[in-house]
Amino acid sequence: MSKKVLIVGGVAGGASTAARLRRLDETAEIIMFEKGEHISFANCGLPYYIGEVIKDRSNLLVQTPEAMHNRFNIDVRINSEVSNINFENKTVKVNSKDKGEYQESFDYLVLAPGAKPMKPPIPGIDSSKIFTLRNVNDTDKIKSFVDNSGCTNAVVIGGGYIGVEMAENLRHRNINVTLVEAAPHILAPFDSDMVTIAEKELEDNGVNLILGDGVKAFNENVTSITVVLNSGTEIEADIVISAIGVTPDTAFLKDTPMEMGPKGHIIVNENLQTNIENVYALGDAVEVVDFINGSKTAIPLAGPANKQGRIVADNISGIKSSYKGTQGTSIIKVFDLTCAGTGNNERILNSKNIKYKVIYALPQSHASYYPGASPITIKLIFNDEGKVLGAQAIGYEGVDKRIDDIASLIRLNGTIEDLTQLELAYAPPYSSAKDPVNIAAYIAENVLTGKSEVVLPRDIDNFNKETTLILDVRNSIERENGYIKDSMHIPVDELRNRLEELPKDKEIWVFCQIGLRGYIAERMLKANGFKAKNITGGYKVYSLGKF
Amino acid sequence: MSKKVLIVGGVAGGASTAARLRRLDETAEIIMFEKGEHISFANCGLPYYIGEVIKDRSNLLVQTPEAMHNRFNIDVRINSEVSNINFENKTVKVNSKDKGEYQESFDYLVLAPGAKPMKPPIPGIDSSKIFTLRNVNDTDKIKSFVDNSGCTNAVVIGGGYIGVEMAENLRHRNINVTLVEAAPHILAPFDSDMVTIAEKELEDNGVNLILGDGVKAFNENVTSITVVLNSGTEIEADIVISAIGVTPDTAFLKDTPMEMGPKGHIIVNENLQTNIENVYALGDAVEVVDFINGSKTAIPLAGPANKQGRIVADNISGIKSSYKGTQGTSIIKVFDLTCAGTGNNERILNSKNIKYKVIYALPQSHASYYPGASPITIKLIFNDEGKVLGAQAIGYEGVDKRIDDIASLIRLNGTIEDLTQLELAYAPPYSSAKDPVNIAAYIAENVLTGKSEVVLPRDIDNFNKETTLILDVRNSIERENGYIKDSMHIPVDELRNRLEELPKDKEIWVFCQIGLRGYIAERMLKANGFKAKNITGGYKVYSLGKF
Ligand SMILES: Cc1cc2nc3c(=O)[nH]c(=O)nc-3n(C[C@H](O)[C@H](O)[C@H](O)COP(=O)(O)OP(=O)(O)OC[C@H]3O[C@@H](n4cnc5c(N)ncnc54)[C@H](O)[C@@H]3O)c2cc1C
Ligand SMILES: Cc1cc2nc3c(=O)[nH]c(=O)nc-3n(C[C@H](O)[C@H](O)[C@H](O)COP(=O)(O)OP(=O)(O)OC[C@H]3O[C@@H](n4cnc5c(N)ncnc54)[C@H](O)[C@@H]3O)c2cc1C
Ligand SMILES: CC(C)(COP(=O)(O)OP(=O)(O)OC[C@H]1O[C@@H](n2cnc3c(N)ncnc32)[C@H](O)[C@@H]1OP(=O)(O)O)[C@@H](O)C(=O)NCCC(=O)NCCS
Ligand SMILES: CC(C)(COP(=O)(O)OP(=O)(O)OC[C@H]1O[C@@H](n2cnc3c(N)ncnc32)[C@H](O)[C@@H]1OP(=O)(O)O)[C@@H](O)C(=O)NCCC(=O)NCCS
Repeated sequence: MSKKVLIVGGVAGGASTAARLRRLDETAEIIMFEKGEHISFANCGLPYYIGEVIKDRSNLLVQTPEAMHNRFNIDVRINSEVSNINFENKTVKVNSKDKGEYQESFDYLVLAPGAKPMKPPIPGIDSSKIFTLRNVNDTDKIKSFVDNSGCTNAVVIGGGYIGVEMAENLRHRNINVTLVEAAPHILAPFDSDMVTIAEKELEDNGVNLILGDGVKAFNENVTSITVVLNSGTEIEADIVISAIGVTPDTAFLKDTPMEMGPKGHIIVNENLQTNIENVYALGDAVEVVDFINGSKTAIPLAGPANKQGRIVADNISGIKSSYKGTQGTSIIKVFDLTCAGTGNNERILNSKNIKYKVIYALPQSHASYYPGASPITIKLIFNDEGKVLGAQAIGYEGVDKRIDDIASLIRLNGTIEDLTQLELAYAPPYSSAKDPVNIAAYIAENVLTGKSEVVLPRDIDNFNKETTLILDVRNSIERENGYIKDSMHIPVDELRNRLEELPKDKEIWVFCQIGLRGYIAERMLKANGFKAKNITGGYKVYSLGKF
Repeated sequence: MSKKVLIVGGVAGGASTAARLRRLDETAEIIMFEKGEHISFANCGLPYYIGEVIKDRSNLLVQTPEAMHNRFNIDVRINSEVSNINFENKTVKVNSKDKGEYQESFDYLVLAPGAKPMKPPIPGIDSSKIFTLRNVNDTDKIKSFVDNSGCTNAVVIGGGYIGVEMAENLRHRNINVTLVEAAPHILAPFDSDMVTIAEKELEDNGVNLILGDGVKAFNENVTSITVVLNSGTEIEADIVISAIGVTPDTAFLKDTPMEMGPKGHIIVNENLQTNIENVYALGDAVEVVDFINGSKTAIPLAGPANKQGRIVADNISGIKSSYKGTQGTSIIKVFDLTCAGTGNNERILNSKNIKYKVIYALPQSHASYYPGASPITIKLIFNDEGKVLGAQAIGYEGVDKRIDDIASLIRLNGTIEDLTQLELAYAPPYSSAKDPVNIAAYIAENVLTGKSEVVLPRDIDNFNKETTLILDVRNSIERENGYIKDSMHIPVDELRNRLEELPKDKEIWVFCQIGLRGYIAERMLKANGFKAKNITGGYKVYSLGKF
């Protein structure tokens, strides 16, 4: 007998499940319900269509109900909201725009309802000048407002990925943009030391950043809206984009036996099965295991959703397949800059009380003698056993590649030693003989084996002059352009001959521009009986903290 | 007591050893001999300086003897050839341009003499119009000839990496270039099916390719040189670049107890130690273990040489460190195209009698709805156990990244299943929710699990009409632009309703443009009791074979 499979949600997770299921099972009856008007659309492209980077709206629609029917023989029902589920009778209640309310029975049920924008209970939040962005309709509304209202000032609330992408794309439309973030920094997947690079890029491109200040109220005026912040600051705008995060779109599961997490996420096991037999769930709506630290988490990203779709289809078809967790690999273009990360950042590790070490590397994106190279700032986080816990990288070229290398290594449980050994493609336009990720691994390995001891730039400002000397080993020109207060200056190439100028009783914290010469000097000093440490990331990372 | 370490060769392997050694050991006496005039130069940049892509000659000199001395306290001796070694007395004989012949003793000896261009015994090979390219002097000579002789026609002999890079860079100088390759195809790391893409790019950029034809003789004329090929073809040129490969520069080790391979490579163990105690060797001059198939091989690339330098220094300093083999990850820019590979290709596997499977994937470099995406042709080679044996990729964007991902996976002994699970950075400008390497892995997994059976495009031409039907499932417009002879045509979206047109007794080889719809059709057919296979890579890869 052929199976009857109902799928709730028709975009990344739902449509992927449907397509794979059909490839595995030609006879299953597959019905996919989507409460919105569109299925299989390019969520991730929406901001770029508003910014007119993507010019053709039809490009956003990866699949249509008809095409999905013709190719995969899927019964796609749009404008059809699943409003309730009777797990005992194995039926769902559907609210259809065209057909009204009806029931549909199932053998298997797949829940892929995704997550919706959070709407904080702030006075004035219901203003028609405040928009959120989840689907094509939202996009049409925002774009039509931008196209037709002659708007010149926008406020984006929330500095997450969607907020930052919206800020950039509104700038592409020549709109003045203020981005308001309640936390001290934007883009939470990045630690604050790294993210200042992205904040600078935004400001350099005309985005007005307000950090560490939340919204208290929205006051709608006749032709504008005033955003009132906790600090008292008031910003007048023609349009507000609220992008403060997402929450699982699972209200229809309330008061059912479905097991849910504290924030409304569906709980699934390794096979993406819920607590109810023959009911699977995936995508933004589910809790996943953090691949690094093993705890439960929610990481609303398209890669995991699409991959999970395939796994759910396999399991329904009797092919045991498991999802091994999400490591949070993610990336964002911020104007010309690329910011990417994988694994846990310091914030997450601290919240889990996991011990870690940090180093920075600042290699060139490709051989520096070949035109077009630019530095990548890499932060590598690892533990005493050499396990790689996370990495963040920001730069103008080759950032995606390096994070993908490290993400692959993490997925395969590789160590710092493995990272030193990755044999990556080298020719001058693409990399260096020692790839940036090899360099980062060398630095980490030196720390692990005690060859180098590092000081984090953020620990410098309150160094103890009695016990510590800070030594600048850069050349004079570099020093003229700025240095760490109260540091002594001996260029690395003179150090061997000037050792007697240094104290043996103090700890010497060496720094150069990026950490390389600092490390060489540290080795030299250590060999000569000094207590030396290297300021990892050097003056460059130190300066980032000053932005 | 401090060690005395002599290093023969002062570029990639030698200089890297010296630098690391000093960082590990401040007191060692380190002398580095270089028979040429320059140390630590950017071998890999030389062609680009001739092409004036790299404008400033000083950029080629990564380190100078003085700088190397000042920073690392290395006694660098240029124009100093080590002509003989007495392993018993632990001395080397040095021929110095300035100081004449002298001896130097050692505790440890490091051999990093690299490899030199092969010079085949072809009549006329000693013409002053024939150049080879290894070092800065060679570069100066070629560049000065190009700059000053008003030369308009060049012949490059050999379609390896250096030959192709020279062809491209001479085109940048507006010189007519003919590239002659004796084998049927250029760029041996790539299988012939893939490399035609690069050959087309060369021709599109005005390089005249002559394949499968070797050089019989060079006839020097007054102002030109005639290259006579085995076929009888004669090509007149102003300049000839001979780039037919390299051979270890180890003649000075002949008649010593040093154990060498059949082609003159130094034999080393995992720790890069030779058969003689305290003597290490590395780089282009040594045999390495092929990481994939475990046999001995030689892969002259800068990444391995630099990495090995670090390992040699470690071992000399008492830190046990081993080199796990070379997988041959490599990359070349061919005008706007990038060609990269890792692991073994079919040619190598066949020579070792290793069984393998092949699939092609042709995903877009990033989400197709975001501007600028272009297809990447990926060839993935794996075995029945799911071990990844090799990969090749060619395209205009994101090729380096995908090969690096697979190279990392191979290094960590990852399987096809692991490759499906890599969680890579996705936002529309960078990738798709299922990254190209995930897609390649899905295709391979389907083959491994029997969900899909594939036919290689090269097996089509002599298909047996009695037993096999070829079915084109593309749309009519695609078909109008060319199709496989004698194939039947039913668009995939009509297939479910037209099954009765197909025979059940024949094997049906389905194809579409790249393999995706072919696979969907294959699944449909299989489910309906047909014997179906998918032509992997579809019409696109089939057409490559026709170039
Ligand atoms: C603007 C934007 C940009 C993004 N950019 C990126 C990016 O660059 N990279 C990245 O990895 N991720 C990105 N994402 C996140 C990514 O789109 C999601 O992680 C992914 O779409 C989740 O897939 P899903 O199937 O769980 O949910 P969705 O794709 O949201 O699909 C869920 C669908 O279910 C429908 N639905 C919900 N409840 C019901 C119901 N009761 N009945 C019927 N239908 C229902 C919803 O209408 C929705 O269409 C972005 C998201 C947005 C909004
Ligand atoms: C034009 C060109 C382009 C290249 N492009 C790339 C690329 O894009 N990617 C890549 O990975 N690799 C590339 N390579 C290869 C890469 O440069 C080599 O693999 C690497 O340099 C090998 O390092 P090595 O130390 O073994 O040898 P080398 O770097 O060649 O150094 C050996 C040195 O030893 C000296 N020497 C030899 N014998 C003696 C002696 N008896 N006494 C004293 N000195 C001696 C030689 O003069 C030479 O300078 C390229 C090579 C060339 C020539
Ligand atoms: C459009 C959509 C339904 C397609 O789902 P899909 O068919 O599973 O995915 P793809 O089109 O990427 O195709 C992948 C399948 O084709 C196969 N395939 C791809 N290229 C192939 C080739 N050249 N040869 C053979 N098979 C190929 C893969 O093996 C895979 O099949 P499998 O899962 O059975 O192994 C789904 O991706 C979707 O809805 N996307 C839009 C929404 C979205 O993802 N939003 C978030 C990102 S913006
Ligand atoms: C120039 C040359 C001598 C440098 O050798 P090197 O000092 O070992 O290499 P790098 O400059 O890349 O520096 C790497 C070292 O600095 C350390 N390092 C790099 N960046 C650092 C940072 N930000 N903080 C701390 N340490 C850093 C690395 O850990 C590594 O040290 P280790 O090996 O002791 O762990 C050598 O690479 C060379 O001769 N190159 C030119 C020739 C060549 O390679 N040709 C082929 C390619 S064209």
